[in-house]
Amino acid sequence: MKYCYSLVLIALTACAGPADSEVEHPLPNVVLFIVDDLGWQDTSVPFTLEATAYNQWHHTPALERLASRGVRFSNAYSTSPVCTPTRTAILSGLHPAATNITDWTLYADKDFSRPMDALQDPQWNKVGLEISDSLLPRMLQRQGYRTIYIGKAHLGAIGTQAADPLAIGFERNIAGHAAGGPGSYYGADNYGNNKPGPWGVPDLEEFYGSDVFLTEALTLKAEQELELAAQQQQPFFLQMAQYAVHSPIQKDPRFFEYFKNKGLDDKEAAYASLVAGVDASMSRILDKLEELNLSDNTLIVFCSDNGGLSAHSRGVTPLGTSKDTHNQPLRSGKGSGYEGGIRVPLILAWAGASRPGYELPADSMLPFATLSNDLYSTIADVAQIPRDWRHVDENAHAVSLWPIIAGKLGVAQRPMVWHYPHKWGPSGDRYEPFTAWREGDYKLIYWYEAEQFELYNLQNDIGESNDLINSHPEIAQRLANNLQQWMTAVDAQRPRRKADGEMLPLPTL
Amino acid sequence: MKYCYSLVLIALTACAGPADSEVEHPLPNVVLFIVDDLGWQDTSVPFTLEATAYNQWHHTPALERLASRGVRFSNAYSTSPVCTPTRTAILSGLHPAATNITDWTLYADKDFSRPMDALQDPQWNKVGLEISDSLLPRMLQRQGYRTIYIGKAHLGAIGTQAADPLAIGFERNIAGHAAGGPGSYYGADNYGNNKPGPWGVPDLEEFYGSDVFLTEALTLKAEQELELAAQQQQPFFLQMAQYAVHSPIQKDPRFFEYFKNKGLDDKEAAYASLVAGVDASMSRILDKLEELNLSDNTLIVFCSDNGGLSAHSRGVTPLGTSKDTHNQPLRSGKGSGYEGGIRVPLILAWAGASRPGYELPADSMLPFATLSNDLYSTIADVAQIPRDWRHVDENAHAVSLWPIIAGKLGVAQRPMVWHYPHKWGPSGDRYEPFTAWREGDYKLIYWYEAEQFELYNLQNDIGESNDLINSHPEIAQRLANNLQQWMTAVDAQRPRRKADGEMLPLPTL
Repeated sequence: MKYCYSLVLIALTACAGPADSEVEHPLPNVVLFIVDDLGWQDTSVPFTLEATAYNQWHHTPALERLASRGVRFSNAYSTSPVCTPTRTAILSGLHPAATNITDWTLYADKDFSRPMDALQDPQWNKVGLEISDSLLPRMLQRQGYRTIYIGKAHLGAIGTQAADPLAIGFERNIAGHAAGGPGSYYGADNYGNNKPGPWGVPDLEEFYGSDVFLTEALTLKAEQELELAAQQQQPFFLQMAQYAVHSPIQKDPRFFEYFKNKGLDDKEAAYASLVAGVDASMSRILDKLEELNLSDNTLIVFCSDNGGLSAHSRGVTPLGTSKDTHNQPLRSGKGSGYEGGIRVPLILAWAGASRPGYELPADSMLPFATLSNDLYSTIADVAQIPRDWRHVDENAHAVSLWPIIAGKLGVAQRPMVWHYPHKWGPSGDRYEPFTAWREGDYKLIYWYEAEQFELYNLQNDIGESNDLINSHPEIAQRLANNLQQWMTAVDAQRPRRKADGEMLPLPTL
Repeated sequence: MKYCYSLVLIALTACAGPADSEVEHPLPNVVLFIVDDLGWQDTSVPFTLEATAYNQWHHTPALERLASRGVRFSNAYSTSPVCTPTRTAILSGLHPAATNITDWTLYADKDFSRPMDALQDPQWNKVGLEISDSLLPRMLQRQGYRTIYIGKAHLGAIGTQAADPLAIGFERNIAGHAAGGPGSYYGADNYGNNKPGPWGVPDLEEFYGSDVFLTEALTLKAEQELELAAQQQQPFFLQMAQYAVHSPIQKDPRFFEYFKNKGLDDKEAAYASLVAGVDASMSRILDKLEELNLSDNTLIVFCSDNGGLSAHSRGVTPLGTSKDTHNQPLRSGKGSGYEGGIRVPLILAWAGASRPGYELPADSMLPFATLSNDLYSTIADVAQIPRDWRHVDENAHAVSLWPIIAGKLGVAQRPMVWHYPHKWGPSGDRYEPFTAWREGDYKLIYWYEAEQFELYNLQNDIGESNDLINSHPEIAQRLANNLQQWMTAVDAQRPRRKADGEMLPLPTL
C-alpha cells in the first residue's frame, strides 16, 4: 500500500497593540541557561518516560522544580556535537554548515582537531560568529531588552569581534571570552589565571584566592545582575552560560561528599558534583527571581550545547567502567555523530506561574524533535520580535517551538467562531440566538434578540461576568468587524423578523 | 508600545511508502468515544491545572487511566452549543454556519426551538448531513478501514439519508438513528420503544425487558464489534457514541448507590451514575482492546458534543442548588453562547502503549485551543488519508491537532541535519568527520574517513547498534539523495585530501 500524508500547518501574522490587553503586561524576561557538555541523562529530571540509571545517579532538585512548571523535550538535539557551532547557531538561527562555523574556535588560524591519515579539515570559519543586527541579542536590545551575558561564550576566536559578547548585542558581559573551557574551577587557582595560556576565566578578580567555586562565582554575579535588572524599567535577557560541566572534571567541594557517601568513586563523584553545582545555580536564580517578584514574568530555557563527554575513562558507573559508556544506551558522546554526541536535555518553563497569555503545559514532556537553533525563533517569538528583523535560513529547517507548546499563541493561531441562530428549548441564563467570536483572550458575543454585543476577557474572567463592551470599544470593534467579515464569507443565516420574515442584518457595532 | 508578532508555521507535504517502515505497521485503529452533553468538569480527570469541585464529585477511573496515556486539552470547545451541529461538523470538517446545520434535527420540516417575541429561526438546514465522499467515515472506508457506528447518531432528520449511519460510510450501525436522546435507559422500558414517538432506541431487541442499562447494552455490542473487527485483516474506526448523559437523567443502578453513599441527593446521584456508566463503558473497551492485543495500535479520542446541561433544577451540589450552576465557574450551559455551553473535555490517547511512530506525550495537558471539527483532519491524519480526498473549508479555521501533539509527525515535520567535517580531539567510538541526516525514524550518517554510510532506525535502535545500510537500500538511497541536495544548497564544506588539498566529493551512495 502506498500512501501520502501531509501536515496542515498554518501561516498567520497577527498584529496586536496595547489595546489588546486590559492590563498591559511587560514583555517577558528570558533566561537562557546553557550548560556545557551536559549529557542527555545527566540530571535527575528524565527526558524519557522512565528515569534511566544515570538519571537516578544524579540529583538536581532545582531542575525538577523547573520541569514541573513547563515542558521537557524528549527528542531535543544540539545543532552540533561540539560547542561553538551550537552556540553560534542559537544566537544566529543559522546552520553551521551554512556559516562554516563547523568546529570549536580559539585561534583564528588554528584548529585542534585530531590528525587524520589521508584527510584534513575543510577551510572552515575559524573566526566565529559574524556580527549582524539579526543576532538574537541585537534584536532583543533593539526591542528594549537589557541583555546580559554571564559565563562561557566561545563564540569567536581570540582577537575577533565576536569573542566579546559586548560586540554582538550584550550590554553586560561577565566571564565570557574566546576560550571554551575554564583553566580551573577554583578561586584558589584564580580560575586558571595563575597559568599562561588562553584558559583563565576573565572578570572574576574579586573571587581570586577564595574558596568560591567557579559555578558559584558566576551565580553570585547573576544574582547581582538580576538585582540591577529589577531596578530598570526594562525586560531582560540573561544568557547564563555555566562553564560547568566542561573539563577539567574538578570536584565541586559543596557537593562532592554527598556523592561519595552515595557510593560514587572520586571521578564520578567529581562529575556529579559539577552537575549538582549547576543545579544549585539554577536554584539560586529561581529564588532570586522570586525574591525580586520577577518569577511570574520570566521564562527559563534550560539546555546543553552538545552531548555528554564520553571520551574519557570512567570510574565505576551503573553501566560499566569503560570509555564510551557515559551516555548509554546512547552510543558514543560529544564529538561524534551518534546519538550520544547530539541528544541533549531541553526544558522551557516559567520561573514562577505562567505569565498570563503565555501558558505552558505544566510538568509535561513533548516528543517533538527540536534542534538547538530552534531557540533563536522561539525566544524571538516570546520577545515579540518582528519577523522582518530576523535571520531566515530556510536551509536550517528551524522552527519556533512556541506555537507548539504555548496556550496564548495556540489560541491566537486562529479565531474561533460559534453560530447558533436559535433559541434553545429550556429557559435559563441566556439560551438565546447568538454568534460568538473568540480571538486571543477575547470573546465577543452577539445576542440577536437583545441586538446586543458583549465582550469578555476569558483570561481573567472565565465566568463571563464582567462585560467589557463599553470599556474596550476598540477591541470590540475589531472583533465585530472580523466576525462580520466571516459571516459574509460563509453567508451565515441570522434569525428572521416575525413581522416581515426578513433576516436580521449582520451584527454591527 | 506597539508591537507585531507572527507565528512561523510550516507547510509540508510528505509522501511515504511502505519502504519507510522496517516492519510494516498496520494503520492505527481509532475509537471516537463521544459522550452526549457531558460538561467540562463532569469527570474526575480535570481539564484545568487544579481539580475543581465538580471534578472531585465525579469518579471516572477509566478516564484517568486513559488520560495517563495521552493528551488532555484545557481549551477544547464544541463547534456548537447543541448536538447535531457539532456531530455533523466532526464528520464533515465543515462549520455549521457554512452548512446551515445550526440546530439539532429530528423532522425535516420542524424545529424545536423556544418561541421568541419578535424573531423566528432562519431557514436552516433541518435535513442534516449532506452525503459526500469527503465525510470522515467514507474516507476511512476508502482507506481500507472497517467503520462501525454504535449509539446516538443524530446526524440527519427522520426519513433523510444521513439519519442512517450506513448511508454515510459506516459498515455497521447499532442504535444510531435520527433521534438525539433515548426514550429510556432501561431495558425494562425497551429503551423507550414501549411508547409512541421517535425516541425509542433501535436495534437492541435482545435486551428488551432485561435489567441491562442502555450504556451497558451499547458496551456489550461494542465488545462484540471489536471481536469481529479483530478477526478482520483491516484497521477499524469505531464511533462509540453513548446516549448518556443526555436527559432523561435516569439512575444507572450499577452506580447510583455509590453516589448516594457519597452523600449526593437522588437527582445528583442519578446524574453522577450516568457519568460513571460512561466511564465503565470506557473501561470495558480498554480491557477488550487489551484482550484482543489491539491496544497498542488503537487511538482513543474522548470528547463531548457540547457543554453540560445546566437548564434544569439541580439537587444539592458543591456550588449551590439553583439552575445554571452545573458548570460553574463557567456561566450557563448547553444551548448558550457562554463558556458553559461550549467548553468540553477532550482527550487523545492510545488505548495501550504509544503506537510506534505516533508517540503522544503521556499524562499531559495542552492549552492549545481546539474546536470539535478539528477532529476531522486530526483523525484523517492518523489514518493517513490523502489530502485531496478531504473537505477543505478555509472558513472553518479547522486544524489538525496531530502535528501539535505527536512525536512522529514532529520528527517528520522536517529533516534534521548535523555537519561536523572534523575529527574531534580525543580518541574513542567514532569521533570522526561526519554528516548526518534524520528523517522520520531514520538517521543516515556519512563517515568521511571511512567513506561509508550507516543507517539506523532510532525508533527501535536508539543505541545505533544495528546498521541497516545493506538491508534497507531504498531508504538509504532516498535519505542520501536528500542529504546531498541539502549539502549542495548550503555549499557545505567537506574535509580535504592531504594528497592534493581537494575537498572530498559530496557523500554519494
